Amino acid sequence: MKNYKLKIEYDGSRYFGWEHQPDKPTIQGKIESVLSRMLYPDQEIAPVPDLIGAGRTDAGVHARGMIASVKMDTDLSCDQIRDYCNRYLPDDIAIREVSLASDRFHARYNAVGKTYRYSAFYGPVHPVFNRKYISILENDVDIEKMQRAAAFLQGSHDFRSFCGNSRFKKSTVRVVDRIEIRRSKGYIYFTLHGTGFLQNMVRIIVGTLLLVGQGRIEPEDVKNILEARDRKAAGPTAPAKGLMLLSVDY
Amino acid sequence: MKNYKLKIEYDGSRYFGWEHQPDKPTIQGKIESVLSRMLYPDQEIAPVPDLIGAGRTDAGVHARGMIASVKMDTDLSCDQIRDYCNRYLPDDIAIREVSLASDRFHARYNAVGKTYRYSAFYGPVHPVFNRKYISILENDVDIEKMQRAAAFLQGSHDFRSFCGNSRFKKSTVRVVDRIEIRRSKGYIYFTLHGTGFLQNMVRIIVGTLLLVGQGRIEPEDVKNILEARDRKAAGPTAPAKGLMLLSVDY
Repeated sequence: MKNYKLKIEYDGSRYFGWEHQPDKPTIQGKIESVLSRMLYPDQEIAPVPDLIGAGRTDAGVHARGMIASVKMDTDLSCDQIRDYCNRYLPDDIAIREVSLASDRFHARYNAVGKTYRYSAFYGPVHPVFNRKYISILENDVDIEKMQRAAAFLQGSHDFRSFCGNSRFKKSTVRVVDRIEIRRSKGYIYFTLHGTGFLQNMVRIIVGTLLLVGQGRIEPEDVKNILEARDRKAAGPTAPAKGLMLLSVDY
Repeated sequence: MKNYKLKIEYDGSRYFGWEHQPDKPTIQGKIESVLSRMLYPDQEIAPVPDLIGAGRTDAGVHARGMIASVKMDTDLSCDQIRDYCNRYLPDDIAIREVSLASDRFHARYNAVGKTYRYSAFYGPVHPVFNRKYISILENDVDIEKMQRAAAFLQGSHDFRSFCGNSRFKKSTVRVVDRIEIRRSKGYIYFTLHGTGFLQNMVRIIVGTLLLVGQGRIEPEDVKNILEARDRKAAGPTAPAKGLMLLSVDY
């Protein structure tokens, strides 16, 4: 068995997230079924290889650079695997690269960092062509206030208040070493880099920063929200459609 | 009655083109029905204002800067008209600007130039996020050859060979003063500027240039195609989804 590393791009709009679920379209499910067909073209009921993603994106979240690993036994070259997948995958999922990885490479366990971008828009005229990849704001926001609030979140913290899974038993300490917020022609971009993120964490951080930006809470309140270690202390979960996984570090 | 000028952006994917047709969704039809509702909010069967577009884009063609004019009697400000329309239009159509025009302004008759861009893509991995706005090429193309062919089309010519309407009775002489072709990361962009374009003309020019780019005809053959004054002499009509009306000059 060889171990392959895949770089994957997808428009998550139509999917119930990365992770496979019975009877629901998911990114992992679509790719696994194409790989199964590639490996066992003549078998009606074929084994399905286990595609391990760097993380599990939520329903509706997009990716430019999701990384996955999969062990397979095939004579096809990396480019042939990529081309086969792209021929049979729907046009909202693309395998950008396939490469051989060491036997011990594991897309989830070996990931040491991830970059996410959240795109929002405020203005009188909503963009037409990017409409599926942005979240529309009803009110304008103060970028400088959000930047001050974000500074409290940077570093190593217990992010339990920003975890969407209230029954999560493991450590909720994570390192977020970069939160950049900038405005460009009505778009407001949040770029976050960290060693790992809890469920919904980026969207809850953005939802909370937007409360600050709208003046509904103060930048300093974010300190208390962190310390509360309670999901109810933080702001709402920002809509999935604005979120994009840009890249994964190994 | 005041005369208004509208700047309109739309994703044409879901529409049967600009011009209204009974029982089919069109851009003109959608905007006219919203304007009618704005002008006569309480009438079940209300008059529909006549929205005059600078041109009629085909089914599936997109626009960033379509211009239209419409005569209306309303106390609303230009921004209020824009905001009303955007609130009730579907999210794949947006009114970017509304301004007051002189009584004699006519979006079609007064248009003196138009800029179109056609976007194609060739490469092993198709883009996911732009997939509705590009045409995928099965074979690579020679940009330099297409540029040489395009030079024969620039200027004032009888473009009958590039007219999709075989029963068109009026003059088919048009001036195309710019055809730029460039490649960027797998994308191939054709930018055309002219005083006016016949039905399907940009798409037939692109379809013919792509034949040259694929080596199936020579750049010099385009001279003969022009001289034939026969639609059958030219190449195929390139798919609508790659075409975008960028702007209209007055």
